[in-house]
Amino acid sequence: MISATKERHGNRRENRIVDFLERRFAGKSASIIKGIGDDAAVVRQQGAKEYWVLTTDMLLEDIDFREAWLTPDQLGHKSLAVNLSDLAAMGARPRFHAVSLGIPAYIADKWVVQFYQGLAGLAAAHKTLLIGGDLSRSANGIQVTITALGETWRRRAVYRSGGGAGDVLYVTGQLGKAAAGLELLKMGKTVGANASEKEALRAHRTPRPQCDVGMWLLQNRYASCMMDLSDGISTDLPRLCVSSNVGAEIYSDALPLFSASKSWNSDPLKLALHGGEDFELLFAVPGNAATKFTRAYPKQFPQVSRIGILTSSKGIVLREAPGKPGHLLANGGFDHFN
Amino acid sequence: MISATKERHGNRRENRIVDFLERRFAGKSASIIKGIGDDAAVVRQQGAKEYWVLTTDMLLEDIDFREAWLTPDQLGHKSLAVNLSDLAAMGARPRFHAVSLGIPAYIADKWVVQFYQGLAGLAAAHKTLLIGGDLSRSANGIQVTITALGETWRRRAVYRSGGGAGDVLYVTGQLGKAAAGLELLKMGKTVGANASEKEALRAHRTPRPQCDVGMWLLQNRYASCMMDLSDGISTDLPRLCVSSNVGAEIYSDALPLFSASKSWNSDPLKLALHGGEDFELLFAVPGNAATKFTRAYPKQFPQVSRIGILTSSKGIVLREAPGKPGHLLANGGFDHFN
Repeated sequence: MISATKERHGNRRENRIVDFLERRFAGKSASIIKGIGDDAAVVRQQGAKEYWVLTTDMLLEDIDFREAWLTPDQLGHKSLAVNLSDLAAMGARPRFHAVSLGIPAYIADKWVVQFYQGLAGLAAAHKTLLIGGDLSRSANGIQVTITALGETWRRRAVYRSGGGAGDVLYVTGQLGKAAAGLELLKMGKTVGANASEKEALRAHRTPRPQCDVGMWLLQNRYASCMMDLSDGISTDLPRLCVSSNVGAEIYSDALPLFSASKSWNSDPLKLALHGGEDFELLFAVPGNAATKFTRAYPKQFPQVSRIGILTSSKGIVLREAPGKPGHLLANGGFDHFN
Repeated sequence: MISATKERHGNRRENRIVDFLERRFAGKSASIIKGIGDDAAVVRQQGAKEYWVLTTDMLLEDIDFREAWLTPDQLGHKSLAVNLSDLAAMGARPRFHAVSLGIPAYIADKWVVQFYQGLAGLAAAHKTLLIGGDLSRSANGIQVTITALGETWRRRAVYRSGGGAGDVLYVTGQLGKAAAGLELLKMGKTVGANASEKEALRAHRTPRPQCDVGMWLLQNRYASCMMDLSDGISTDLPRLCVSSNVGAEIYSDALPLFSASKSWNSDPLKLALHGGEDFELLFAVPGNAATKFTRAYPKQFPQVSRIGILTSSKGIVLREAPGKPGHLLANGGFDHFN
C-alpha cells in the first residue's frame, strides 16, 4: 500500500478497515496459499510447477502524487515500481502487468504515451510484460491502478509470517531517502541543486524495486520473513512482527540513514523511521545463518544493513545500539474495526 | 471497458489511444496466449492444465456512476460484475479477484462494509474468492478498480478473433435495458414506479454477468467468437468484426429490445444499438452448427436471440430483416493515433 502524502490518520483508518475486511471477506480455499494480509497474494493452479503471485496498487492524484511533482514517465515508472516491490517482497519473479489509467479531459495524448514509456522502461528492466488494462476519462484527477503477476521459484515464497525470535533483521539500501525527496518537493524544489538533492528526488520519483535481491534471498533460502517498506519502518515493522507473532528491537546507530537530508533541515532518523515510499526490503535471517548470509550476499547488489533482531517479547523497541536503553516505538497491534 | 455516462467523444479517444498502446507497448511472449485487445488476457504457466485469464476494470465516480444513483452494495456488485462479464466473454471460470478502492474522507466505514457485502454476494454466486487489494483515501471521489482472474476450460478460450463469414450472430438477454435504467436515473427516478422501471434500474445497477452461458458455449464448442456488450452493439460489434476480420449485418426486427422503455419516452431500438452496460454476451456460431446450438441451449439459461450474421464484406449493416434494405451502421474501423 502507498502513502506518499497520506496523513497518519488515513493510514490508521486503512489498517483498521483492511483488518476487518480480511477477517470478514477473505477467500479461503486450498488453491489460495496466501490471501489478504501479505505484500501479495499467492495462488496455485493444478499441475503447475510454480505458484502465481498477484498484487494490485493504486496511485491517486493529490494523495499519492501531485502532477506538478512528477513527469508522466516518472509516474508511469513509479506506478509499476510500487507493484514490483510487492512481488520483490515475496521473492517472486515479475511476469505480467495490467494498467488501469483514469485521466481528466485536459490530459494530452502525449502525456499518456510518456506515462507508458516510463512504465515500459522499468517493465523491460524486470522482464514483465504488459497484458492488458483499462483507459478511461476521469472527472476527478489522475488515477492509476496496476496489477502485477509474478511467479514463485518452485513452490516457494517468502511471507511476512515466517520470522522467529532471534532472527537478525536487515534492510536494503538507505532509509528515509524518498521521504527526504518529498520534503524537497514540499519546499518547491522540483529540481535538485546538488547530487544529494537529485538523489533524494530520484528516490521519491522513480523508486527501484529490489526484485533481484528478493529472488536471491528466496532461492538461497536465507530470508525467514520479508516485506517491502512502503510506509516507513515504524508502520511496516509492526506489520511484519504481528504476522510472525514476534517483537523486534532495532538500533538507531545501525540504520542506514540518508544523512544528506540534514542540509535541507530534515531529520534523517525521523525520516528513516516514519518516512514512506523507500520500497526497500525489510527481512530477517535466522541467527545461525547470518554470517553465511553476509558472506554470500552479492557485491553488485544494493547495500544491506543489519539493523536489529526479532524478539519473543511483543512490541518494537528502538535502542541506540544493542544493550543500550531503549523506548517502545510501537506496540505492534492495530485498532480493530467494529 | 466501461462507459455509463461517458460521452461518445471520450469513447472514441479511448479506442484510439488503446489501439496505439497495443501496437507500441503490448508484451509478446510464448506465455501470452492473448494480450491486449480482447475482453481479457490469457496467459499460460509451465505444466498447468489450464490457462489463466486476467481482466481489470475501473469504475470512476461521475464517469461510470453517481453516488446518489447506487447504494454501496450495488456499487460493490456492479464493480465485480463488469469484470466477471469480461471473463464470461472468454468462456472462463472465475477464480479470484482483488479490489482497489479509493474513498474520500467523508465516506463512512459502514459504506465500505456494505460495498464489500454487495461484492461478496456476487462473488459467492460465481465462486470467485477475494485474495487482495488496496484501500486508500481519495482526494477526488470514489474509485474502484477490480482485477479478476479466471481459468480456461482445458487450454481453450473463446476470442474475439475466431469468427468467420456465414457465422450466425446471437446475443443473450435483452438489449438497452441498462441504458433504459440510466434514462430513469437521469430523470431523477431512483425508485422504480412499476415492474418495468424496477427491472431497468436493476439492470443498470446490478448487472448479471453471463458466466454460465460463456462457459457452456466454450465447453460445447459452439462459439467461434465472443465478447461482452459493455458499450452498446454499435460500438462493440465493430470491435468483434475487426478482430475476426469480417463484417456483419444485423436485423432490427430480431433485436431483443426492452420495449417497456417506450413508456418513459425512450427509444428501445436506439438504446439497444447505442446504450452501454448491458453486459450481455455477443457471440457467433458457425452456420452449420446453428440448429444444433438452438436445440442444445439449456432452457434455464437466459434467452438467446439470433440477431444477424457475419459477412465477408467489411462494415456493419443494419436491416429491418434479412433481404430488406439496409444502411451502414459503422465502418468497423477506428481512427489511428499518431
